[in-house]
Amino acid sequence: MFEKKSPLVGLVMGSDSDLPLVREAAETLDNLGVSWEMTIASAHRSPRLAQAYAQQARDRGIKVLVAAAGYAAHLAGVLAAETILPVIGLPLASSPLSGLDSLLSTVMMPAGVPVATVTLDGAKNAAVLAAQILALSDAPLAQRLLDYKNSLAEKVAEKAASLR
Amino acid sequence: MFEKKSPLVGLVMGSDSDLPLVREAAETLDNLGVSWEMTIASAHRSPRLAQAYAQQARDRGIKVLVAAAGYAAHLAGVLAAETILPVIGLPLASSPLSGLDSLLSTVMMPAGVPVATVTLDGAKNAAVLAAQILALSDAPLAQRLLDYKNSLAEKVAEKAASLR
Amino acid sequence: MFEKKSPLVGLVMGSDSDLPLVREAAETLDNLGVSWEMTIASAHRSPRLAQAYAQQARDRGIKVLVAAAGYAAHLAGVLAAETILPVIGLPLASSPLSGLDSLLSTVMMPAGVPVATVTLDGAKNAAVLAAQILALSDAPLAQRLLDYKNSLAEKVAEKAASLR
Amino acid sequence: MFEKKSPLVGLVMGSDSDLPLVREAAETLDNLGVSWEMTIASAHRSPRLAQAYAQQARDRGIKVLVAAAGYAAHLAGVLAAETILPVIGLPLASSPLSGLDSLLSTVMMPAGVPVATVTLDGAKNAAVLAAQILALSDAPLAQRLLDYKNSLAEKVAEKAASLR
Amino acid sequence: MFEKKSPLVGLVMGSDSDLPLVREAAETLDNLGVSWEMTIASAHRSPRLAQAYAQQARDRGIKVLVAAAGYAAHLAGVLAAETILPVIGLPLASSPLSGLDSLLSTVMMPAGVPVATVTLDGAKNAAVLAAQILALSDAPLAQRLLDYKNSLAEKVAEKAASLR
Amino acid sequence: MFEKKSPLVGLVMGSDSDLPLVREAAETLDNLGVSWEMTIASAHRSPRLAQAYAQQARDRGIKVLVAAAGYAAHLAGVLAAETILPVIGLPLASSPLSGLDSLLSTVMMPAGVPVATVTLDGAKNAAVLAAQILALSDAPLAQRLLDYKNSLAEKVAEKAASLR
Amino acid sequence: MFEKKSPLVGLVMGSDSDLPLVREAAETLDNLGVSWEMTIASAHRSPRLAQAYAQQARDRGIKVLVAAAGYAAHLAGVLAAETILPVIGLPLASSPLSGLDSLLSTVMMPAGVPVATVTLDGAKNAAVLAAQILALSDAPLAQRLLDYKNSLAEKVAEKAASLR
Amino acid sequence: MFEKKSPLVGLVMGSDSDLPLVREAAETLDNLGVSWEMTIASAHRSPRLAQAYAQQARDRGIKVLVAAAGYAAHLAGVLAAETILPVIGLPLASSPLSGLDSLLSTVMMPAGVPVATVTLDGAKNAAVLAAQILALSDAPLAQRLLDYKNSLAEKVAEKAASLR
Repeated sequence: MFEKKSPLVGLVMGSDSDLPLVREAAETLDNLGVSWEMTIASAHRSPRLAQAYAQQARDRGIKVLVAAAGYAAHLAGVLAAETILPVIGLPLASSPLSGLDSLLSTVMMPAGVPVATVTLDGAKNAAVLAAQILALSDAPLAQRLLDYKNSLAEKVAEKAASLR
Repeated sequence: MFEKKSPLVGLVMGSDSDLPLVREAAETLDNLGVSWEMTIASAHRSPRLAQAYAQQARDRGIKVLVAAAGYAAHLAGVLAAETILPVIGLPLASSPLSGLDSLLSTVMMPAGVPVATVTLDGAKNAAVLAAQILALSDAPLAQRLLDYKNSLAEKVAEKAASLR
Repeated sequence: MFEKKSPLVGLVMGSDSDLPLVREAAETLDNLGVSWEMTIASAHRSPRLAQAYAQQARDRGIKVLVAAAGYAAHLAGVLAAETILPVIGLPLASSPLSGLDSLLSTVMMPAGVPVATVTLDGAKNAAVLAAQILALSDAPLAQRLLDYKNSLAEKVAEKAASLR
Repeated sequence: MFEKKSPLVGLVMGSDSDLPLVREAAETLDNLGVSWEMTIASAHRSPRLAQAYAQQARDRGIKVLVAAAGYAAHLAGVLAAETILPVIGLPLASSPLSGLDSLLSTVMMPAGVPVATVTLDGAKNAAVLAAQILALSDAPLAQRLLDYKNSLAEKVAEKAASLR
Repeated sequence: MFEKKSPLVGLVMGSDSDLPLVREAAETLDNLGVSWEMTIASAHRSPRLAQAYAQQARDRGIKVLVAAAGYAAHLAGVLAAETILPVIGLPLASSPLSGLDSLLSTVMMPAGVPVATVTLDGAKNAAVLAAQILALSDAPLAQRLLDYKNSLAEKVAEKAASLR
Repeated sequence: MFEKKSPLVGLVMGSDSDLPLVREAAETLDNLGVSWEMTIASAHRSPRLAQAYAQQARDRGIKVLVAAAGYAAHLAGVLAAETILPVIGLPLASSPLSGLDSLLSTVMMPAGVPVATVTLDGAKNAAVLAAQILALSDAPLAQRLLDYKNSLAEKVAEKAASLR
Repeated sequence: MFEKKSPLVGLVMGSDSDLPLVREAAETLDNLGVSWEMTIASAHRSPRLAQAYAQQARDRGIKVLVAAAGYAAHLAGVLAAETILPVIGLPLASSPLSGLDSLLSTVMMPAGVPVATVTLDGAKNAAVLAAQILALSDAPLAQRLLDYKNSLAEKVAEKAASLR
Repeated sequence: MFEKKSPLVGLVMGSDSDLPLVREAAETLDNLGVSWEMTIASAHRSPRLAQAYAQQARDRGIKVLVAAAGYAAHLAGVLAAETILPVIGLPLASSPLSGLDSLLSTVMMPAGVPVATVTLDGAKNAAVLAAQILALSDAPLAQRLLDYKNSLAEKVAEKAASLR
């Protein structure tokens, strides 16, 4: 629907078991006409991969990183430590504690190194937030986000109407 | 230190008791040379004020909103519902539950309306995240963030050295 | 069983996925002879719908609002901000955190804007509470509530008897 | 300010150590011109007192009960079991668990016997909710609540103005 | 296996949906040769039944009460308020919060009115604790408990042996 | 007030820092005329002491054990593993987690080895529960417990009266 | 693959229902060429077995203990109380509270008696930690661990490559 | 008391505000005759320092790492990602959530990269665990640990004696 561009959003997941949720983020970005790339880079099993990715992302033209991880989810923090790009943390509810661990591991970052944390398993929200950030300097994207926002309201109105 | 500009970051707090933490965010923005404005607009006591602020912010040239609130912290969500600007949620630990309530109320947003949530009482992180977003289209700010990032590492190195 | 009247209880849900629980509330109201209407109005996806509904409810003769929502459940708070009608919050256990998020988001309201929160997924209790409020000025309804209360005790007694 | 009437709200606390918070509720009711009475009746130490109070309240002209209790806070539930009057539960944060225990003990009532639970230590909200319920059949009180609601918004606006 | 006696343990449940777990307690008592009776008496739906049961239990020769309940589990507390018999609280994990609510509602009793709380869904433990209390004045039961304790150790040893 | 007897209740604490709360239990037992002894025996630092104490307690005429401990509170479980006497667990709120750790460590015992857990820091309740157990075969103690129960109700009634 | 040796790691579980997870630990040790033995010894049902095992383990040549248990998981603490060998605690998520109880019971040990706690249900991690400890004086094992660490990174890199 | 050696334990903290607790660990190591070094290296503010330290530690003769950090405590995980040395995680209770965040961030590591987590603020336990690991190949240290373990039991016995 939208012309393909070099990727602006880097979707990083800690494990390939997180792929379904990350794909949902990618589809949302597609729908919003935002280009992305996707990789796997564990904070603990392949830390240099994760760091190298974060260090080079800005020079490669990436504008926003999204990090999806479960359990003691350090991935977003590891990326945020290596770049001044905004890093969106997507905590996953994959552990026995239903994601309380990944949520706290992602959001409670120490002073100076923020992670923009979204809803547990909130892949769509990670994508929309990335688009909102990019839309600050992309007027057509801003318009698409406004349309998307309107469509959310319209869908609610339609469903409300269908109740009667 | 930095030339004053029209405000790019809107700092919104739910109550004037939140002022000390929001001031900390403002100081961090000052240090990074990011212009800001500050207001009080409760999601529940003055919802129209909060909404009107969010609806007009984009047209007034604001790029990022920061919402600081405690208890059932709806302020960030109320702003996010009214604008496509990125909204940073700063949950406050002011309640008997030490902020577990404000954290969950801020971060667990439904699909389609994200809030970029940072650390409980993490005023500095809210400011740095706002700056990171703005730096995507502001090269001197990006350089200042790189300097800030280096200074964080240097301070740690100095303290490590002083241990000996 | 009971004569149909113009609706006294407004049942509002944040998403049509909440319909089964809200229907349970409606059935309980039917059994108690309390008239209701039902709508969908998301606090975040269609905030103006939600607000407009709350603002007009009192003039339209609605006496009590029930707001059912999951995750960072702001719906009850959004309604309570716009009306002096009593707002009953029905937090839903639909999130990975099993409703701890919606419970705290609903009940921990700041001073001045209360939400009357009931059990997680407690649709029946939301309905009974609404009826109890209405019964303050509706003697036949008060009698039906007394009968209902007696029937609860009788059912327990019957089951206790059937144990032997 | 307002003419004294026979009490419409019954404020019940589990222990005299809860008195300061219950007084805050009483003052809020005074400000709203709602008459009240106050008593101590522990769910566990003086259950018959608590039950008798709830059983007789309706006949004595009480319209709404407010139950303030900490720890395994059963007081609201005990009252709700004995009356069809709306019972507002005010959980207190007095225990080592900061009120998580009293909140869950108050709000998670079984089907058929609701408690209208408000914020932990939210004495003011308990009072406002009681007034909102009474205002359904008391137009002057409704007007006072509308004034109160406006005053909340005005105070926020004033404080916002004083920031400049 | 053991001679039938008039019941010494009163097993009370809040709802007939709790029957499977209470039956497990009854079977454990049977295995230990402890006589019991079983009833349903909700703290909230049939409070007088529950109270009357507790008030008469001691005169009827009951020595220990076991109260099984979920959600805001007040049943054990209601019984404990009415009798000086030891009351064992058996919190059930039947709610969306997996029993954190019933556990805190059962165990966090205020000073002066204890409930002897056991494991969530720990029907067997409720029964063994009741037997331990009765065994203080019943030497053959004490011997059976010692045998039971030995059998627990033996079963572990057997299973350990079967690992090889 | 009451004739001294050989101790019936063994009060065990994991550390001498727990002494103030255990003394409160002892005073409550004194007030109820129940004889006690007190010792320190850590589950982890002096396990054999703890075990030996539990193994010999029954032969020495002890009827009930009370185990007070904080953090990963294993003391009650260690005692319960070694004796068929009823073991009352008194979890202490001394840790950074305010006792959530000691509460769960004390109450969530595996099948077959119950611990009768009371309120966090609930020293008085541990004592009253011990007395209730002993009163099953001690009619004068039962009478003193009934008097105590009445005095609890009377104190509440007096305080309620003094409110007027 | 690796020459069989007398066991260096003692895998202890509290119940045979924990066997599947403990087997996963054993397989991981096999893959790393670390010899092990396995037993069942409940902290509460067979405390002497557990203690005797811990007391003799060091003399029998065992170097590291792994204790797997759920609920109020005391097994690791019981072993740690009896030996100066490092004890690895493997908390299991088998309870209604999804392992929050076993995690806190295992990790929050009092001063002087540590338990090296790993991830809930983290059998593989318990094994790798045991191997890391043993590798301090076993160079070939250290090499195998380095290889294992590399393989973890390689697998992530492969999966990342396969995304394209 | 003990001959100084090149350091065997590397104590790493995320911030100099953690120094008091880390000093307690160092003193415990001193008392046990274990040599140590101390540094500051934040996982997020100076990640390369932290990584470089972990990468070189083994070659420099360090045998065990201890990582002390609060909030979203990633330090232990960052070190564990870079070395096969055992890494002990010491979560600190410095955040508004009293350390629940640092505990989960430290212990819930993904498969393959364990962190040996000890008690919140448990500096002494981190030191003792390090010593236990080193004692596997250091007989005099093992003897000192046995003495230490005996002294723990003796101190408890003394305190128990002083109660009389």
